[in-house]
Amino acid sequence: MQMDRIRASVAGASGYAGGEVVRWLARHPRVELAHLTAFREQGRPVASVFPNLRGFAGQTLNGTGWLEMAQDSDVVFLALPHGAAIEAAPVLLEKGARVIDLGADFRLKDPATYARWYGSEHGAAHLLDDAVYGLPEQNRACVRSARLVANPGCYPTAAALALLPLVRGGHANGPVIVDAKSGVSGAGRNPSAATQFSEVNENVKPYKIGEHRHGPEMEQTFALAGAPVPVYFAPHLTPMTRGILATCYVPLAGELSEEEALALYRDAYRDEPFVRVLEQDELPQTKATLGSNFCDVAVRVDRQRRLAVAVSAIDNLVKGAAGQAIQNMNLMFGFPETEGLWAPAMFP
Amino acid sequence: MQMDRIRASVAGASGYAGGEVVRWLARHPRVELAHLTAFREQGRPVASVFPNLRGFAGQTLNGTGWLEMAQDSDVVFLALPHGAAIEAAPVLLEKGARVIDLGADFRLKDPATYARWYGSEHGAAHLLDDAVYGLPEQNRACVRSARLVANPGCYPTAAALALLPLVRGGHANGPVIVDAKSGVSGAGRNPSAATQFSEVNENVKPYKIGEHRHGPEMEQTFALAGAPVPVYFAPHLTPMTRGILATCYVPLAGELSEEEALALYRDAYRDEPFVRVLEQDELPQTKATLGSNFCDVAVRVDRQRRLAVAVSAIDNLVKGAAGQAIQNMNLMFGFPETEGLWAPAMFP
Amino acid sequence: MQMDRIRASVAGASGYAGGEVVRWLARHPRVELAHLTAFREQGRPVASVFPNLRGFAGQTLNGTGWLEMAQDSDVVFLALPHGAAIEAAPVLLEKGARVIDLGADFRLKDPATYARWYGSEHGAAHLLDDAVYGLPEQNRACVRSARLVANPGCYPTAAALALLPLVRGGHANGPVIVDAKSGVSGAGRNPSAATQFSEVNENVKPYKIGEHRHGPEMEQTFALAGAPVPVYFAPHLTPMTRGILATCYVPLAGELSEEEALALYRDAYRDEPFVRVLEQDELPQTKATLGSNFCDVAVRVDRQRRLAVAVSAIDNLVKGAAGQAIQNMNLMFGFPETEGLWAPAMFP
Amino acid sequence: MQMDRIRASVAGASGYAGGEVVRWLARHPRVELAHLTAFREQGRPVASVFPNLRGFAGQTLNGTGWLEMAQDSDVVFLALPHGAAIEAAPVLLEKGARVIDLGADFRLKDPATYARWYGSEHGAAHLLDDAVYGLPEQNRACVRSARLVANPGCYPTAAALALLPLVRGGHANGPVIVDAKSGVSGAGRNPSAATQFSEVNENVKPYKIGEHRHGPEMEQTFALAGAPVPVYFAPHLTPMTRGILATCYVPLAGELSEEEALALYRDAYRDEPFVRVLEQDELPQTKATLGSNFCDVAVRVDRQRRLAVAVSAIDNLVKGAAGQAIQNMNLMFGFPETEGLWAPAMFP
Repeated sequence: MQMDRIRASVAGASGYAGGEVVRWLARHPRVELAHLTAFREQGRPVASVFPNLRGFAGQTLNGTGWLEMAQDSDVVFLALPHGAAIEAAPVLLEKGARVIDLGADFRLKDPATYARWYGSEHGAAHLLDDAVYGLPEQNRACVRSARLVANPGCYPTAAALALLPLVRGGHANGPVIVDAKSGVSGAGRNPSAATQFSEVNENVKPYKIGEHRHGPEMEQTFALAGAPVPVYFAPHLTPMTRGILATCYVPLAGELSEEEALALYRDAYRDEPFVRVLEQDELPQTKATLGSNFCDVAVRVDRQRRLAVAVSAIDNLVKGAAGQAIQNMNLMFGFPETEGLWAPAMFP
Repeated sequence: MQMDRIRASVAGASGYAGGEVVRWLARHPRVELAHLTAFREQGRPVASVFPNLRGFAGQTLNGTGWLEMAQDSDVVFLALPHGAAIEAAPVLLEKGARVIDLGADFRLKDPATYARWYGSEHGAAHLLDDAVYGLPEQNRACVRSARLVANPGCYPTAAALALLPLVRGGHANGPVIVDAKSGVSGAGRNPSAATQFSEVNENVKPYKIGEHRHGPEMEQTFALAGAPVPVYFAPHLTPMTRGILATCYVPLAGELSEEEALALYRDAYRDEPFVRVLEQDELPQTKATLGSNFCDVAVRVDRQRRLAVAVSAIDNLVKGAAGQAIQNMNLMFGFPETEGLWAPAMFP
Repeated sequence: MQMDRIRASVAGASGYAGGEVVRWLARHPRVELAHLTAFREQGRPVASVFPNLRGFAGQTLNGTGWLEMAQDSDVVFLALPHGAAIEAAPVLLEKGARVIDLGADFRLKDPATYARWYGSEHGAAHLLDDAVYGLPEQNRACVRSARLVANPGCYPTAAALALLPLVRGGHANGPVIVDAKSGVSGAGRNPSAATQFSEVNENVKPYKIGEHRHGPEMEQTFALAGAPVPVYFAPHLTPMTRGILATCYVPLAGELSEEEALALYRDAYRDEPFVRVLEQDELPQTKATLGSNFCDVAVRVDRQRRLAVAVSAIDNLVKGAAGQAIQNMNLMFGFPETEGLWAPAMFP
Repeated sequence: MQMDRIRASVAGASGYAGGEVVRWLARHPRVELAHLTAFREQGRPVASVFPNLRGFAGQTLNGTGWLEMAQDSDVVFLALPHGAAIEAAPVLLEKGARVIDLGADFRLKDPATYARWYGSEHGAAHLLDDAVYGLPEQNRACVRSARLVANPGCYPTAAALALLPLVRGGHANGPVIVDAKSGVSGAGRNPSAATQFSEVNENVKPYKIGEHRHGPEMEQTFALAGAPVPVYFAPHLTPMTRGILATCYVPLAGELSEEEALALYRDAYRDEPFVRVLEQDELPQTKATLGSNFCDVAVRVDRQRRLAVAVSAIDNLVKGAAGQAIQNMNLMFGFPETEGLWAPAMFP
């Protein structure tokens, strides 16, 4: 679809992912903000809930219904608790709006897997086939023509970009381990005991290791890439606001040198605007991607231990959520893929 | 001066202020990067010293001399230790380049004051009269026609924007106290014991209270505004990378209500693109300006104690250094003042 | 009172102040823990709510009533939301237990002031006369014989120790400004939006400046010391867990040299075990007191501006709460004042 | 050896590990501090270099030679750059002092391995046989009679305590992966670009993955335990001062249930004072050990992927350095093992 300028709405604009979508849209040259809705903060100016938006977004958070939102929007970003998009997406699509869901509702293709991991039957399973998993580096063509995009989870984005070249190449032999270190903003903005400053500061801790919902999403990504492999996913909380560093361990199927591995990555990402394959003496760090849509990737091979180690870094709220959503929007509406997203990270 | 597109060089591009200038220039629509120089990191790609710049700046840090730099540049940003700009500026100006000095060399108008606070005679005192103190909110007209801009210090920027409306209005009676809380990046990138993570983290500490070099710079600003007032300046180091919060205490000369004070600020900053006067129930916080060129300001009045309290927040590397330098560049070259700078802070 | 060994209970043991009392009591050689109660976390082992206590406290948090608690305890620490101690203290005292209240209920001597600042009538005003304000450096003798101790607020402790020598000496002329920078743990353990890691990290912000409840508590302290002076109190939240740094500005009544000021402090604190007056070239930093019961103090004089600046640093949960409470307990029961408290801060 | 009270010296007392030894010794009931030496900070009071020690250690850092130090000390702690203990230990031992080396010089039993990883021949290889690797949980009996203790590295301590029960049980099949997340204090106190606050804050990054010197130390530990297994060691720097969390992945040799694995750990650590095996629904976090000598451990089994995951948390400066050194000292001199070390972590 080719348009000059579109209207976009954000549902759940008081959360971190939703607010980040607004932050990027507010200066996107092709987008006009339509509705910003929020359940809890209705009636407050978005710039009071996100004080960085003073001067950039004059809207008040409201409770606009799906019908009106669809009518006024070419695209709707859903940044809602899981389950909510299952209600909203059918209505929005029916009325002609395109939908980019930042939540988990349309990521898993198999309704049974969804039910097992999210605790309830999927109420819009008929849309799962049409939903496109919005990882442009894997699915660019499909995203272009998608009406409903399931924006990948933050961890699965980091893991997929770190691992796809190796896994697609058939180099993974047996369970791949994804040891991820995340900033706290990924847990969302709702106050909880575990995300209080005093509990997070000066603390590193694992959580839900081996049983996090993003594990099956990773396994699906590799299966869809034609190279199914079991994944053991171990997420950790670290004392920072933004960022994911994924260190991924791959038992090698056969001989592979570090140079060959690196060549795989350079080939895979040569034309990718937002994936940077590092030099052989460099390793990713989250700070190099802070506030940007980039994913930095490196790979190492330990031939003696027959192990490849792939490392990726992203900003969980940008490439891991809002930025990737806008990258998908650009593709869906025929805009240049980097439009409104081409900005370096903040360092330091 | 009106040009379509200019060439800019940065001397000291491996430091935090210099690197931040490069970060903003790299996506400024009117600027082409010419030379990036550095003393210590010569020969390294700037994108290896600042990994956020991968894909944005392909230059290698070098040791280009002033003459060649002047020849190839319409403007040169100096982000050097104090003393160095005194050597460089005369040469650059002579050869026709404009100069924006992010250091302290041309801020103080009185060479004796310079000598007292910086420990050596000023070697280019003849330029002090022509140098324009680059605080656009005070000196916009002069900046437009300046050939040499002395970019204000980070603390003096925060203090001036917090205090000018009150001080210019003649409301300050006796010493004004500026209690500033700063992130650590203001100390620069050279490794030192005091700026090690383990010493800064989980620590708040004052330093050089009553004897910091930015104190006389603040007093000069008020004197030049026609309202001289003594300043007691107390800087504090806090465990964050970027940001200055200045809490300024003003003994009141006469009666003044909070509404009247607020009106003073709204009047003063009505047309300022980068100063945001907050609502009466809001207070500035550094995070609302993180990574942006904004300064947020609020004012409170305690009539019983005859005290006004003005609070400002900035990002020390942006409005307190690189961003303000580019704002000055925009003015000097007739570009829209917000060109290349109009971006919201990152939150959270 | 002279005993060999006492039984102590803590009400509100799931909060940060209560948990910190338990942490210190658990290895106090004269104390046996009796009851640990909590409203919300009843039924959970205290060592699951405070994982640092594994191996040190086997108790389960429960809902023991005041009568039973009084019966089983020589002393009860109340670490409760304000208002709750007004209910509990009369019952506990009646049954013979001593009470150390870490909350605000018995700090303000004037019930009208209490009502104005805490929003409801004081329900146990008859106890206010007997309640001893537990700042040992000011009230040691009274604490020894107290049955009900009102443990000072964290900010008032820092402000009083910074200012008492100057104020008692009659050197303050007009409003004293207390600009305090605090860690977040002072806000307690209940999850709130304002204390989420992502909102606090990389952020400094003022709050309730000129209208915080600890302001009148400070003014009372100086009035009780015989030297009433108005206080303007401006608290700030900084990105650390523990610590308060108070920078206090005192307009001087007459001539005073820095040496004279320093002598005042050395005299005042010569025999104080937990107040350390720094050398003339040193300034306090919160990290030097982290996890300890010490208060570090320094004083500067700017004769030209007729201003003294006193700076103090404490750990808000220790000298600002639990440690001071135990110091008071030691005094009340005739133990050595430093018993169970004599430990250096953690650095770094 | 059974003594009532001993004299201890610390060489390298201005670094973080050395300073932490002083912090613990200063209140150890059986120890009198003799000499504190430092190369760079000679002549400064130790309490000015470590401001937390004000009131606890009056010594001035000096340059006392090994002979005098040996004469005045029953035990000498060496907290020096690698290579230095090779010079000092022979002299100290010759003169009758016992030596606890916190550096790497006597950890590796094979001089060739030392030379390969530390870049020079081992100058005191004749002592390697007598040196006891001071991991009490593995070597308690040998430590008791040791004259020279090689205190384990921080990472190898965390890895060994996490893995020994599984590895000794023969359950590891093929390379074990140790993914460790560390605070920055482990890098020492010497200022470096990589440990500046602004570079570390809001950043997670891997370094030296697959090629860190602590890798061979881990492999040696398992070999000495009779169960050699290759180790892939991937250290990461996280934005905190203290703490190591080690997440260790073990490909299982055969069937093993989570309950069986947990039983292995409970058996192994039943009588260990400083290792706490967590409950089945708990996971270690560094904050629960902050400032203490504890190591928290948990184990999970994923039978489908034939993988065991063992997680440990320590404070790198305590159980990972100074605390373990003092635990070894207690053993060497016949003191109760927990003497002077029995204190809970600080939380929050």
